Amino acid sequence: MEAVAYLDHSLEVAIGVHVGLFGGTIALLGSAAQAAKWLPPVEAHTMRGCFALTELGHGSNARGIETTAVWDGAADGFVLHTPRETAQKYWVGGAAETARWATVFAQLTVGGDTVGVHPFVVRIRADDGSPVPGVTTADCGVKGGLNGVDNGRIWFDHVLVPRGHMLSGENAVSAAGVYTSRHSTPDARFASQLAALTGGRVGISRLVNNQAKLGLTIAVRYALSRRAFSPTPGAPEARLLDYASHRRRLMLPLATTVVYSLAAGALKDEWNSHAELRDAAGRRLGVTKRLHVLSAGAKALCSWHARDALQECREACGGQGYKSDNRIAAVRATHDISCTFEGDNLVLMHTVAKALLGDYAAVVGARRRGGGKLPPFGELLAFLNTPRMGAAPLPSPRVSPRDVDAPTFVTAVLRDHAAASMTALATAYAAAIKAGTAFDAWNSVATAAADTAAAVMAVHAHAVGAAAVAAAATADARARRSGVAEPLALAVHLHSLGVVAASPGYLRSGALRLDEAAAVEAAIERGCTALAELSRGVVDAFGIPERLLAPIAGDWVAHNSRARL
Amino acid sequence: MEAVAYLDHSLEVAIGVHVGLFGGTIALLGSAAQAAKWLPPVEAHTMRGCFALTELGHGSNARGIETTAVWDGAADGFVLHTPRETAQKYWVGGAAETARWATVFAQLTVGGDTVGVHPFVVRIRADDGSPVPGVTTADCGVKGGLNGVDNGRIWFDHVLVPRGHMLSGENAVSAAGVYTSRHSTPDARFASQLAALTGGRVGISRLVNNQAKLGLTIAVRYALSRRAFSPTPGAPEARLLDYASHRRRLMLPLATTVVYSLAAGALKDEWNSHAELRDAAGRRLGVTKRLHVLSAGAKALCSWHARDALQECREACGGQGYKSDNRIAAVRATHDISCTFEGDNLVLMHTVAKALLGDYAAVVGARRRGGGKLPPFGELLAFLNTPRMGAAPLPSPRVSPRDVDAPTFVTAVLRDHAAASMTALATAYAAAIKAGTAFDAWNSVATAAADTAAAVMAVHAHAVGAAAVAAAATADARARRSGVAEPLALAVHLHSLGVVAASPGYLRSGALRLDEAAAVEAAIERGCTALAELSRGVVDAFGIPERLLAPIAGDWVAHNSRARL
Repeated sequence: MEAVAYLDHSLEVAIGVHVGLFGGTIALLGSAAQAAKWLPPVEAHTMRGCFALTELGHGSNARGIETTAVWDGAADGFVLHTPRETAQKYWVGGAAETARWATVFAQLTVGGDTVGVHPFVVRIRADDGSPVPGVTTADCGVKGGLNGVDNGRIWFDHVLVPRGHMLSGENAVSAAGVYTSRHSTPDARFASQLAALTGGRVGISRLVNNQAKLGLTIAVRYALSRRAFSPTPGAPEARLLDYASHRRRLMLPLATTVVYSLAAGALKDEWNSHAELRDAAGRRLGVTKRLHVLSAGAKALCSWHARDALQECREACGGQGYKSDNRIAAVRATHDISCTFEGDNLVLMHTVAKALLGDYAAVVGARRRGGGKLPPFGELLAFLNTPRMGAAPLPSPRVSPRDVDAPTFVTAVLRDHAAASMTALATAYAAAIKAGTAFDAWNSVATAAADTAAAVMAVHAHAVGAAAVAAAATADARARRSGVAEPLALAVHLHSLGVVAASPGYLRSGALRLDEAAAVEAAIERGCTALAELSRGVVDAFGIPERLLAPIAGDWVAHNSRARL
Repeated sequence: MEAVAYLDHSLEVAIGVHVGLFGGTIALLGSAAQAAKWLPPVEAHTMRGCFALTELGHGSNARGIETTAVWDGAADGFVLHTPRETAQKYWVGGAAETARWATVFAQLTVGGDTVGVHPFVVRIRADDGSPVPGVTTADCGVKGGLNGVDNGRIWFDHVLVPRGHMLSGENAVSAAGVYTSRHSTPDARFASQLAALTGGRVGISRLVNNQAKLGLTIAVRYALSRRAFSPTPGAPEARLLDYASHRRRLMLPLATTVVYSLAAGALKDEWNSHAELRDAAGRRLGVTKRLHVLSAGAKALCSWHARDALQECREACGGQGYKSDNRIAAVRATHDISCTFEGDNLVLMHTVAKALLGDYAAVVGARRRGGGKLPPFGELLAFLNTPRMGAAPLPSPRVSPRDVDAPTFVTAVLRDHAAASMTALATAYAAAIKAGTAFDAWNSVATAAADTAAAVMAVHAHAVGAAAVAAAATADARARRSGVAEPLALAVHLHSLGVVAASPGYLRSGALRLDEAAAVEAAIERGCTALAELSRGVVDAFGIPERLLAPIAGDWVAHNSRARL
């Protein structure tokens, strides 16, 4: 899928929906028998499926969907129904034309008890593409991009779904109409139903970095061949990348792309390892809180970054960046929905912040008790368990500015800021919740919450990057000769300095001192200059085949010659 | 044109190219006889034209174009030629199909002397659309948007242009082959040739705000009807605009759109007044430095703002924002090239900064001499002539934080920061130019230069906004009852607080104190809440006809009903 993303994002999303969301839901939530029955035809693409969760009226609030599934003991099945227009399934990739089956999420009622959202494997059209009784589908229409995916709408009119088609790895209804669940609380039950979305977010985090790599490869190569203005009269014109302003607009996104690729890669490895784990009964483990939080934060930050990087590449290539042949504008347009699908980015950042607040309370509580169980986030939140957490927001005054080029500098600034932000957020929220409703309290800290989530995720991305730098530095001689160590160290340092310099928050929290800010700025300029020297090698190392690049990445004068008309 | 922009951006750009650039060049640079001959058929659209300046090899560096026009006395005309592939005219709106004529810019040589870039009125195809000898045209191909404009390429093969077709209001070649110019220096001569582009930038500054207004009208109306999550169990779900995070993502852009619309409107008035002025000989005055600088800065900041505002609207409407029917994604795509055409935004910001440095030197020089002539920028740079300019970058320590809600607060912060930035930029550039080449010196301050230009333009936009607030507050009772004063004052205050809070530069310069930053943040949250209360009225006041909005601005449930399939 990562390779396909370079070729065509729609194709990659279509595969992702069928394999990751449709097949993934069966694999993660189905019983062993259901998996054995359905996964082979899913993998063979003979049982083409889609993932029908979102409705016209409910997207972010998936728990509020209105489609109903009512247990009918006499029929040994569930009556699936769309009770009103807001309950129509919406944005379902593949539903307009391609899919024959769907994992449909609906509010399950058994014997009069509503037990929440559950998934059902439902046929939505015949294998020859003709309609089936009770199911209406329609196209969502033309979109700003990704038009290779046939996003569709689905209405159900009292469709009988056989009992065996409720995915029953986690929860089940017996022939006698008795509902059983592996989970002890409705919250845990609901969270478990969306496991496939977590995997989807891990995948998106990877794929959007590849879109940024494609844009940056094209823009860097163009900036090395396109010239404008002579530095001195009569001299050849300078290359775009000879300009400090052009270096900055491309090198900071390039550095971030390298770091986010490492972070998303580590997340993918962690997800894949986890997916292989089974409990004593042979069942897959649920998604951990750590994976849920990390995938939410990574998906949001990686897709926002790719959005901005592609936009910068577009503008950095001028009108040529707008020309469809040169791919950047088209990739930017198809990417755009990544900021929204599988979770609105801003909502995801709030998800991260809410989880962090829970961990913060656990840490402070444990410290007050003089020890005890610590939160489950692991190394992401290792800094939560330091004295700084919960301490006064401003670190102790330092005597003189630190050396901003020392690797320890930016690590400290990132951690100090994340700790100060967490402390301030938790303090403000605790005060607000005493004064009013949870809704009002959250509203009063919403901006700080998103900023804090970003600050914590920045600590994580930097830690992954720094670990890769350390690994490269201690690699054997052959690896060192490959030239990876220098650009990698540069990229990690430059990216994190860029994070620290971009937001006033680092100054406000005191993590970065005012008298250090100018030195950080100067270090960023030096870093951009140094990375620009290595930039052709870096983008070549992305390994995107030449034929998937663009005319402006090559001999664009010959490409535009009159002889080629 | 501003009304047409709501309907279709391509149509508006096509009109702008024909009337503003093709006709505008004739009006601004032609002789009275040429204007009398050509403007009537241009206005009647019977002489359809385009504007051929940019070439494949030269965009920002328009002075470096390679198309040649060589005076041929025997033929009483100029031989127009494309000497190599990089000299092909490129991105010329209307050149692929629509236009029959072009104002072609070429390097003029008379009697062996090359005298720089000059415009010629040249037929590029017959009135029936068939080719004319010596001229080859081609389409630039599909773009990321604006595909209603037929951007094209043009090659000339020794085309003879009659002497009377060189636009001769500023410079002329006599029948005897004698070149005369109204301008005393090549720099002034070149600058005068691009006058139509200044008018174009004024127009773009207006039009992109209308694109932002369209997006915001749709997104605000959707945010007032779309609901998600119940604040308390069993309660109706909250509207999107009830969420602080959603308010912030829409209200800050809304405030900025109001302020930038005022600033761009004032600029348009100034441009129109200036265009009516004539010198003693009845000739139009050249573009003033003030108009050149203001139009460059406004075009860059307004188009970047519209880009970001439309993107925020897109994401704030979720998947519906991506759906073409709902217009936002399409308007975002057609808008995008506004960041590049008629001047790359980053290059334009450097243009502003370079002009500011010249004025700074003039102010400091005049002060040293104890008075003297001050720079021509007028009220935009009034603060240049204060003691703060050239003084120590940090303002004197204040005893306690100021009242951030007092209108004087943000005015002072904006001006202090602009003055400090100018001083720091001029000092750094003066040191750098002593140490190396002008190219290297500029590279060393490029980031600071763009930031300083933005800081100065922010002073200007705020001043225009504050003047409008003052006018509304002192208007008669009827005007006050219209309800304009309150949202206007809110928008101006919120926009400028947003500018101050968004960039670490305001803390770094000392214009904003660290102990004031939290109060600014709180004031922004209050401002977003207050403006949200008035937001439906504000977007209604934009006056966009209902039929040019989008399904999600109305009853989107009914629009999506199955009955409508």
